[in-house]
Amino acid sequence: MEDQVRMLSKNTVKFIKSLHQKKYRSDHGMFFVEGEKSVIEVLSSDFQLHSLFVSEAFWGKHRVLLDRLSIELEIVSQKQLESMGQYQSNDAALAVLYMKENKAFDASKDELILALDDVRDPGNLGTIIRIADWYGIRKLVFSKQTADFYNPKVIQSSMGSFTRVSFFYAELSEVLERWGLPVYGAFLGGESIHEIKEIAPGVLVMGNESNGISSEIGERVNRKLTIPAFGEAESLNVAIATAILCDNIKRLMNP
Amino acid sequence: MEDQVRMLSKNTVKFIKSLHQKKYRSDHGMFFVEGEKSVIEVLSSDFQLHSLFVSEAFWGKHRVLLDRLSIELEIVSQKQLESMGQYQSNDAALAVLYMKENKAFDASKDELILALDDVRDPGNLGTIIRIADWYGIRKLVFSKQTADFYNPKVIQSSMGSFTRVSFFYAELSEVLERWGLPVYGAFLGGESIHEIKEIAPGVLVMGNESNGISSEIGERVNRKLTIPAFGEAESLNVAIATAILCDNIKRLMNP
Repeated sequence: MEDQVRMLSKNTVKFIKSLHQKKYRSDHGMFFVEGEKSVIEVLSSDFQLHSLFVSEAFWGKHRVLLDRLSIELEIVSQKQLESMGQYQSNDAALAVLYMKENKAFDASKDELILALDDVRDPGNLGTIIRIADWYGIRKLVFSKQTADFYNPKVIQSSMGSFTRVSFFYAELSEVLERWGLPVYGAFLGGESIHEIKEIAPGVLVMGNESNGISSEIGERVNRKLTIPAFGEAESLNVAIATAILCDNIKRLMNP
Repeated sequence: MEDQVRMLSKNTVKFIKSLHQKKYRSDHGMFFVEGEKSVIEVLSSDFQLHSLFVSEAFWGKHRVLLDRLSIELEIVSQKQLESMGQYQSNDAALAVLYMKENKAFDASKDELILALDDVRDPGNLGTIIRIADWYGIRKLVFSKQTADFYNPKVIQSSMGSFTRVSFFYAELSEVLERWGLPVYGAFLGGESIHEIKEIAPGVLVMGNESNGISSEIGERVNRKLTIPAFGEAESLNVAIATAILCDNIKRLMNP
């Protein structure tokens, strides 16, 4: 009987399912991460663990790591993992973690910072976090209407990169004023990023999926940047545009 | 009674719902497009229309265009539009169109062509089509395992750009051999696209979401291109990578 998978209490399942919703994440100050890669990354990050549920297979495969971290865990079935999380298929693990305090970081003059002005789609936010991590951007600041960092879809689409960035939610205009750094914004009809010869570190602002950068934040933009179009598409998805701008800015900053 | 919305026959609804599946799209040689923007764009394209269903609001707003095109249409309710398509909300229109013949195009030496080697996710394919349209890439060739161009999610995520590209499905290796053009492929550990000073027009190959470019196609790649990483993310989504490569190649081709 010792090898039997433990029965998860109904309350545990109910609690974790409540974390699918922002209201309950806020109430409990917790969120969850699922899938092998993301759980492994979050266990090695500075997020504090609340509880961990793993399959026998995951436990067997990562036993050395799990022993070293001296983590208490529950071995559960694939079906139980899938009943708690949002993945259609999860035969690995699910971790419940404490959210971090929403604390502003300082900005320095020698780094590129990303600011999101009401990026609402969780998939876009997660993809942008992955792009930031690719380009070595460690600091992100989000307007209060931007999607919730702890939304399971954000966590999933960031592919583990959510563990490697610092972020906070704030009134963007106040933050931009306080920092006093150069502010770049993605606009139609600005300077072509293919013609720019140099660019100083600063804050790159990306706007809402439908409306772009708000007029309030637009007033704080020192330099309007445009991705040159060669065809007829009217626009690019905000994550795509973020990637292209980061690529160009990083190329110019690292000649 | 004249103002009443017409009753759609059960057979019509059943027929259109069958087009959600590739098997029935192939059997009928038809696909559907929904939503205001995409329907307007497809009506002005060279796709042949089979039937058109519109809301009163759409009909009122686009009456001049619809009259000029002398299209026979049925006015239906929002609920009926939503019952036929896959949008959660569609108070505009749904068009049924004939698929195009799968016909190879010729390649010339002065243009950039995109080749997809088993890009499986419909959202990625649609986003890549939108990116191609932004960068003025008019020709795309797909391996036979690439997602179906006529999948409703591809149509949706291309945001109308599906009307402005030519494409065919084929054995990629045969096509690349026949064309004899330079072939570029996205790989880890290739030439950094930030260091390349010039690049000739040719075929850019993008690979599968999990496995990248297959070894068979990899052998035909003349130049391996890499997006330089500045951080720790292990990879980029294939649509993101396509955008960054197209941006760099177009910049080099249009100095």
